This record gives sequence, C-alpha cells and structure tokens, in this order.
Amino acid sequence: MSGAQDDREQRLTNEVVASFDDAADPRLRTVLQALTRHLHAFLREVRLTEDEWRSAITFLTETGHLTDDRRQEFILLSDVLGASMQTVAINDEAHANATEATVFGPFFVAGSPKIELGGDLAGGGPGEPCWVAGTVTDTDGNPVPDALIEVWEADEDGYYDVQYDDDRVAARGHLRTDAAGGYRFWALTPTPYPIPHDGPVGSLLAAAGRSPMRAAHLHFMVRADGRRTLVTHIFVRGDEYLDRDSVFGVTPSLVKDFTREAAGTPTPDGRDVGGRTWSRVRFDIVLAPLA
Amino acid sequence: MSGAQDDREQRLTNEVVASFDDAADPRLRTVLQALTRHLHAFLREVRLTEDEWRSAITFLTETGHLTDDRRQEFILLSDVLGASMQTVAINDEAHANATEATVFGPFFVAGSPKIELGGDLAGGGPGEPCWVAGTVTDTDGNPVPDALIEVWEADEDGYYDVQYDDDRVAARGHLRTDAAGGYRFWALTPTPYPIPHDGPVGSLLAAAGRSPMRAAHLHFMVRADGRRTLVTHIFVRGDEYLDRDSVFGVTPSLVKDFTREAAGTPTPDGRDVGGRTWSRVRFDIVLAPLA
Ligand SMILES: [Fe+2]
Ligand SMILES: [Fe+2]
Repeated sequence: MSGAQDDREQRLTNEVVASFDDAADPRLRTVLQALTRHLHAFLREVRLTEDEWRSAITFLTETGHLTDDRRQEFILLSDVLGASMQTVAINDEAHANATEATVFGPFFVAGSPKIELGGDLAGGGPGEPCWVAGTVTDTDGNPVPDALIEVWEADEDGYYDVQYDDDRVAARGHLRTDAAGGYRFWALTPTPYPIPHDGPVGSLLAAAGRSPMRAAHLHFMVRADGRRTLVTHIFVRGDEYLDRDSVFGVTPSLVKDFTREAAGTPTPDGRDVGGRTWSRVRFDIVLAPLA
Repeated sequence: MSGAQDDREQRLTNEVVASFDDAADPRLRTVLQALTRHLHAFLREVRLTEDEWRSAITFLTETGHLTDDRRQEFILLSDVLGASMQTVAINDEAHANATEATVFGPFFVAGSPKIELGGDLAGGGPGEPCWVAGTVTDTDGNPVPDALIEVWEADEDGYYDVQYDDDRVAARGHLRTDAAGGYRFWALTPTPYPIPHDGPVGSLLAAAGRSPMRAAHLHFMVRADGRRTLVTHIFVRGDEYLDRDSVFGVTPSLVKDFTREAAGTPTPDGRDVGGRTWSRVRFDIVLAPLA
C-alpha cells in the first residue's frame, strides 16, 4: 500500500472520529469514537472487499429479520463472538473469593414459580433428578440469609420451557436461603444442548467449522441486599463440551462434580425418585459486596 | 485493572480467536479472527457496561426491524460510521490520475431510462435544469467510446423518485459516450438532502450532535470494457455541507464548479428552459484499467 493510500484511509478515520466531538454525553462520545477507530482498523487490516461488505449487510439484515420476542439472534451473534462473555468478564472484576459470573443467556423468564427449600423445580420437565445444595455467603464467609436464588435450565431434550409451543413452565424456579445461608432443591441433571442454529448465526458457525453445542449447565441468578447480583452457571465436570462451549461461558471455577447415584440409592431428603438414577451437586456461592 | 483480570480477558479473546481455526475457507478465518480481535479490543478499551451492551442489542434489533426492501437501515449505519466510505477507499487504491470513487448509496435502481446524448434525465422531477458534460478517457488520456454512464440524483425537494409512494421514475437515466468519449445531458442542479433519519440511525446522529444532511451531489456509475467500474459522485463547490457530509463521501477531487446562469442565458444546445436560471458543470472522467 502506498503512503498516499495509507494517508487517505487514516484521514477518513480521523474525520469520522472528529464527527463525534460534539456529542453532548461524554460517555457516548468515548464509546462511538472508540467504536469508529476499532471498526476502521478492522476494515483496513483485512482489506475488506465490497462483496464482503455486502455479505455483512445481508447477514445483519437476516439477523434482524429473524429476531422477535421469542428469538434474539443478535444476542446469539454476540454470544458466539465471545462479546457477551467478554462484557461479563469486564464487569466482573475479581473480588477476593467471590463466585465468578458467566453469560446470562436468552432463556431467563421473570416470575418463575416459587419453590420451598428442598422443593422440586423440574415442573414435570423430562430428565434425571438432580439434588442441588450449598450455601450463600459473603466474601468473609458470613452466611447470607434470605438471598433470592433464581434457577433455570434446559430439559434432557435440550429445550427450555419457553422453546415449546405450549405454555409450559418447567425447569425453572426461585427460592430463598435459610437463616444459615443454606439452600437445597431438586432440579434436572443438566445436559448439553445446541443454541438455536437454524438462522444466520448457525450458518456462521457451520462455515467456521464450529459446533453450536453448549456445555451442560444450570443457570443461577442470586440477589441479596448490599451484595453484587451474581449471574452465573455451574457446569458438569467431564462434559464433552467444556473446552468448546459455543458461547465461551466456561471458567474452571464453575465446573462442579455432579455425582451420579445408582437407582435405589436413598436420596438426601428421602424423596422417592421412582427407582431411577439421580445425581447430586454442591455449589457454595460467594457474593461480592456492592461496588 | 489487576494482572489477573487482564489475563482473564486476554485468555477469553484468544479462546474465541482459536475457535475459528478450523474454518474451511482461509479468508473467512482471517476475517472472523480479525473481527474478534478488534471487537474485543473495543469492549475492553471502553470497559463496556452491561447496560450499554443491552442498549447495543436493542439498537441492532430496531435497525433490523426497520430494514425492508425500501429502507436499508444497516447501510445507513455503515454510512454514518464511515465504514461504507472506508470500504470504498480500501478498494479504490489510487491508479495514476483515475477518478476517485465514493459511496454507492441506497438509491440506485437498475433499468433506468435510456437517454440520448444531450437528452434530459430529469423526467419531470422538480428542480433547476443543469447541463452536465465531459469526457471519459483512460489513464493515458485516450477516449473511451461507448462507455455506459448511469446517473441518479435527488430532486430539489431532497427526495429520490423511489422515496415517493407513486411509481414515478425521475432524475435518473443512462447514456453512452460518443466516438470521442464525450457525453452531455440535462439533469437537475443537485441540492443537499438528509439521509432518512426517523429511525435508530437518526437517533444516533441526534445524540451525537450530527446533522443527517448530505452535501449536494450527482451520482455516477461508469462502465466500459477492460476498465474498472467507477462508482462516484460529483459535489457542488461552495455547498455548506461539504465539510460535514453525513456519510463522509466528499473528497476534494470530486468537488466541481457548478456555474449558475441567469434566466435567459442561451443554453449550450439551444434548449428553452422556460425563462428560469440554469447551471452547468464539466466532469471529465478517467477510468482505471482492470486490476
Ligand atoms: Fe442455558
Ligand atoms: Fe445520493
């Protein structure tokens, strides 16, 4: 590339950056100017062709047209580019021994069923019963009583309740910790599932030789007064997708031992699980203080 | 930021980059890996908040929902971020004295009316008559006969024909150069107009304190055998928006003298323009060889 060409491209970038100088909100100015610099650096580095530019416009258009109240293809795009997880990481700077956050995902629903301590949130969803128990503490080890725990997960067929056409509510619920910060409930043993991959993001993954599968996981959101809200998952040690989770949500500290128990093994609370296998996992949650 | 935090973020970026290692098409791998690096560098530099991430998802969703066969909000977004013009610049590395390219814009329509040399492509669109003439040559100065010239522009109310709800065809047409590479036609004196700004891109411009106005211009696309196709505009010297064109399409070499003639001044071809003012401009076009 000639110096004159380099100058022409750099001048253009500078002109676009300067166009945001008058933004009333200084944060908006910062974000748009940085976006401009990084976007132009990308275009210049790869020497994007005009055909590739048109393909990008078409890709974004199809992504927009597939997105509706039930399907958020832009979030999937952000997920598979690691942008969602990077945003989580940026906003989750480590605080002592606090539990790490991971991606929120598109399947949380406000207003889930309330579950008693030791209750079952499977709601009839298909899958192996899983006993989940642990504590919620602060970073000094003090129990956090009355913390609100929201839990949601896919069933053993790999679908969240909201992905079915009926109005079922299954494999989600909320409960509160006891006076000692303890909690326990029945759920389903998590199984791997693909992110929706019949749209443009699925095509991108296929072209890139990437699997749409997510490592098996159980979602948690934990809130308590005076504590930073934690959005996270726990993953299943030994799961085949841990090293290639399609949305990059896995961090080692969140991989837990899910112990499978033989059929007939007595359950912690004496519940009869109908003569089938069941699993158990312990997850002790540590909440950071508010920033 | 702690070293551990920096490591966590960098490891995540590396993991996403590596996820594209197996793309079958090496060019796709290059583009997606560069996109990942620059996107993550942007997120990390601005320390994007989760609220800002949600705003970005909402912005893209609204942009997608507004886009249809007649309105391409993603192209507008690319335009106002200078990405369209940067892509043009990257693909238009200077060749000797060849005419510079600029953005294509969303208003070209294939199958425009054929105009004879000296004909009028206004098609009844409102505006001041403008006589446009020049030559098409190669970079050695040899005439290019039979070059195909497509021309399109907004009317004096700032609208292209396709922006009206009727099926009018106006202010667009195509013609061919004569044996000496010459061309001439009547059009409308270009006037500034706003890009469509009643959507998310318009809101972004408003928040940034930027005008949606484009500097007045006349679009050209010129094709000839053995020559690189040229997509460009000419701009009007003295126009108030030359230094703040909303899509960054202006380059000095494309700014031309549009000379305004008093009412009653004889026209070059003797046409009676109805006792009103008219303008004239000369635009000599130089086509680069095929790469
Ligand atoms: Fe999930
Ligand atoms: Fe235009």
